[in-house]
Amino acid sequence: MTLSSSGTVWNFAAGPSRLPDAVLARAGDVLFRRGADGAAVIERPFTGNAVRAVLESARERLTQLLDIPANYHVLFLAGGAMHQFSAVPMNLIDPASGLRTAAYADSGYWSRRAMREAARFAEVSVVARHDGSQALAAPAEDNWRLPQGCAYCHITANETVDGLAYPAWPNTGDVPLVADTTSSFLSAPLDIARFGLVYASAQKNIGPSGMTVVIVREDLLRRPAQSAPSPLCYRLQAEQDGCLNTPPVMAIHLAALVFQWIAESGGLSAMAEANRRKAELLYRAIDGSDGFYTAPVIAAHRSITNVRFHLADVSLTERFLSDAEKAGLIHLRGHRHVGGLRASLYNAMPLAGVTALVNFMAEFKRCKG
Amino acid sequence: MTLSSSGTVWNFAAGPSRLPDAVLARAGDVLFRRGADGAAVIERPFTGNAVRAVLESARERLTQLLDIPANYHVLFLAGGAMHQFSAVPMNLIDPASGLRTAAYADSGYWSRRAMREAARFAEVSVVARHDGSQALAAPAEDNWRLPQGCAYCHITANETVDGLAYPAWPNTGDVPLVADTTSSFLSAPLDIARFGLVYASAQKNIGPSGMTVVIVREDLLRRPAQSAPSPLCYRLQAEQDGCLNTPPVMAIHLAALVFQWIAESGGLSAMAEANRRKAELLYRAIDGSDGFYTAPVIAAHRSITNVRFHLADVSLTERFLSDAEKAGLIHLRGHRHVGGLRASLYNAMPLAGVTALVNFMAEFKRCKG
Repeated sequence: MTLSSSGTVWNFAAGPSRLPDAVLARAGDVLFRRGADGAAVIERPFTGNAVRAVLESARERLTQLLDIPANYHVLFLAGGAMHQFSAVPMNLIDPASGLRTAAYADSGYWSRRAMREAARFAEVSVVARHDGSQALAAPAEDNWRLPQGCAYCHITANETVDGLAYPAWPNTGDVPLVADTTSSFLSAPLDIARFGLVYASAQKNIGPSGMTVVIVREDLLRRPAQSAPSPLCYRLQAEQDGCLNTPPVMAIHLAALVFQWIAESGGLSAMAEANRRKAELLYRAIDGSDGFYTAPVIAAHRSITNVRFHLADVSLTERFLSDAEKAGLIHLRGHRHVGGLRASLYNAMPLAGVTALVNFMAEFKRCKG
Repeated sequence: MTLSSSGTVWNFAAGPSRLPDAVLARAGDVLFRRGADGAAVIERPFTGNAVRAVLESARERLTQLLDIPANYHVLFLAGGAMHQFSAVPMNLIDPASGLRTAAYADSGYWSRRAMREAARFAEVSVVARHDGSQALAAPAEDNWRLPQGCAYCHITANETVDGLAYPAWPNTGDVPLVADTTSSFLSAPLDIARFGLVYASAQKNIGPSGMTVVIVREDLLRRPAQSAPSPLCYRLQAEQDGCLNTPPVMAIHLAALVFQWIAESGGLSAMAEANRRKAELLYRAIDGSDGFYTAPVIAAHRSITNVRFHLADVSLTERFLSDAEKAGLIHLRGHRHVGGLRASLYNAMPLAGVTALVNFMAEFKRCKG
């Protein structure tokens, strides 16, 4: 592989994805070096003080970053967002209290996956979807008609595959708003109080795969969750501080390092500002290419973390990908369900990576345009 | 902490537990060093060839170690054994085919936890338990009366808390035998063909916590598994080679390193021989202590991985633990449900650690006996 002029290879994968250099540099020592007690952290009992301190520190750091209100529980659970696709209805549907229906907004690939899984465990009502116009957009956030006996309303805050995001949160009144925030989590501040439950799998802005953050409002833990496997039951896990069974210590410890890196880098407002600048640079390159590149999502609903675009001449796509790879710009292929191109610009991607990409795009256009 | 005379601290934790030195030494580089493609393995898409090769190599190495027959699927799933406590009934109970009942053998703490969870999703029938005599033992493995419409029969091959193991497998005829082998997995060869399904969470002989190995016979994948969350559904995961959703790559990669270490150390028969010698040394020290130390399990049913014992004078227990810690022998406290002492001697514990322990025990007896 020929490196870009900076000598660096930039990894634009949608997740698992690039981690902060500072975290990678420390991770081996933190996880695998034995301490004075003869044990590395991953060799210690999870019931002991040392591991509990790791879990507590991860929780405290995340609570500070997001300013999570005191009436929410923060859980670090094994598995991915897909585990939560089932866990959410299993925990929140409560037929005995008349809460039989789950409302879902259809905004793209992952919201439909979540909905399909929920339909195995609940009556699902689609309460919002894209308006059918040609330009891609998230559902408009007003005028949602929630069904009677609605246990919760689920949105996918940022659609990783489709490259679109909600510009504002819908108002669901007394019905708890549940959000899969996997690919936007920690990319910007998030007003947790707007939600009944927020979840995000790790492999975007949190760390390697294998763990999912669940932030759940206390009152929702009173629902019976009769059909949920115990380790997927929010109440049981909250009662045991996420340690009903052995937690994925390695993934949680790395998350704590990432949380620390975010705090030291200025916190979530600094992340948001940097992410906005990166996305702006790339979208401007696309929009200013005289139609050589196009982005299918309307401007107000464009994701700042997953920038989706394509070449007007789709026959150039494979050449673009192979030339980009030669220039040290990798994993730019769009998801197989939508095709085209996608650059994921999570927190760990510096502006320099995006600059390298837009420079390459200009050069590619100069040669092929 | 004062070190033992060898200068080493020995960690006897029941899991998460000691990992092989050679694996710890390589782990940081293997997981966190970026390659020529600009990405560390945990930063790469799980759908790409590089990560698929890691998963495939883990599977092949385990298949070779255990000589797994071709009609079994090997899955590396997120979560712990407790996830399987629910997944087993959710996948294997099949009321439409008349398979409504799950048979469980009660051999101690973890089999009762598994049974309690299964009872949330199936009719559970206890088909065997300890005979009620004073000495602890696993249920005798013959004369089990399996109920009509029995979907499977579950045993806990090695009881980590109680320190006992089955000396031979029960014969369950056509009813699939399902075994939680968490704390004995890879401690010795295992005849997979005797089982319909074997599972083991990682944090004993496989690697850090966060992953569970499931080895399932092909014919069992035909059961409908209607109530199983998709990522816990064996059929869906088997159809996607364990990649229905993003797998816990970090934990699987470390497992592959451990599998390689076992192979290079002589394979499972060498592990079994080393484990037998370690356990023999410790049980001999207990049995030869003129009653100062006692082991509660009958000789034929004693676990070789979790050696449970106590002091005849229980008032000495705390002193034993604090003196042991000063001597560099840590995590010897028995599980809170049974008290006393426990030394876990998984593959990564060398004979030198057990020698240090028996020397300390002799010295402690000399001072206090």
